Amino acid sequence: MPRWKPDAVERLQAAALELFDEQGFERTTVAEIARRAELTQRTFFNHFADKREVLFGMDAELRQELVREITAADALPPLDAVVCAMRVVADKMLESRRAVVTRRYAVIAANPELQERELGKNAALTEDIAAALHARGCDPTGAFLAAGAAMLAQQAAMREWTRPGETRTLRDLLTEAVRSLRTTVGGEPAEPSPPDSGAGPS
Amino acid sequence: MPRWKPDAVERLQAAALELFDEQGFERTTVAEIARRAELTQRTFFNHFADKREVLFGMDAELRQELVREITAADALPPLDAVVCAMRVVADKMLESRRAVVTRRYAVIAANPELQERELGKNAALTEDIAAALHARGCDPTGAFLAAGAAMLAQQAAMREWTRPGETRTLRDLLTEAVRSLRTTVGGEPAEPSPPDSGAGPS
Repeated sequence: MPRWKPDAVERLQAAALELFDEQGFERTTVAEIARRAELTQRTFFNHFADKREVLFGMDAELRQELVREITAADALPPLDAVVCAMRVVADKMLESRRAVVTRRYAVIAANPELQERELGKNAALTEDIAAALHARGCDPTGAFLAAGAAMLAQQAAMREWTRPGETRTLRDLLTEAVRSLRTTVGGEPAEPSPPDSGAGPS
Repeated sequence: MPRWKPDAVERLQAAALELFDEQGFERTTVAEIARRAELTQRTFFNHFADKREVLFGMDAELRQELVREITAADALPPLDAVVCAMRVVADKMLESRRAVVTRRYAVIAANPELQERELGKNAALTEDIAAALHARGCDPTGAFLAAGAAMLAQQAAMREWTRPGETRTLRDLLTEAVRSLRTTVGGEPAEPSPPDSGAGPS
């Protein structure tokens, strides 16, 4: 096989995930990842700052694509615009990579430091989505709530999509999650007035 | 003034927040916090593991209270049960402490490490809420979505409540945020079918 491979990023990600899976994230070195991918360490560092970034390297591209799609969908109400954009990104960037994304989730779930980074990246993505909605005229609170609600549906869909044996597409699971969210949030009276549960202001 | 004070925890929290505010979180020592509170370092360490925990020390109590209230409100649908519990906790544990909570937010916002811890604590709280809903018979996805939606409303309300000059109660702002969330999420058609934005599956 030739030393130089056009799909270096994907090969490095796949190799890293295999190794993280086999021997743990902490115990895997960049040298091992490069070797498994049949590439050099130099190539690794051309694409990723460190071994953690192999797991988060797609984030910037995904975010850009999402923001572009939200801006394009400006005829739709805020939440629908975000969900529509998420469906496009699911088809273009995620659907064909279910095995890799599933493995990535498992690695992150096993490492508190990676979980923190994932939470931070999700919070930043939520802010980017809210900013894109605000830029198209949505008030700040509405933008924050629509962005947060869409991320919530996305997370619920991703949980299902990465479950063993699940065969439905991410697009369909996202549609399903938004429907559940609408039932959970929208289906109830706006102001229930239950009897005070015995705890007044102290 | 006597050396031993029954309100040690609140005095230490107030002293810590003053110092974090004045000279930054990183530059403040436990010795300084104890001195400002007119207490000993030993007393500090009786209550907090380290100076970061001064900021997060109330979390365990708040979580217990919230879970107890959710379990008590089992006649309500999931989201309403959580929001009802959040209102009780707002009245009992937060409303009288607006100045302290506001300062706490400012300290956290200025420090990435504290932001990460805050995100982690929020994620753990969301899971606890979902577990409490699941325990009363809610399906896992519904529990996850109701917990996440309630946390989203809570965050929107806290943003307003800690804003300079804001005088409405947290309870009222929470009610308002839930109303906005219902409008954002519930008010739209479940399945918009916009023209495909040019990006099919790749």
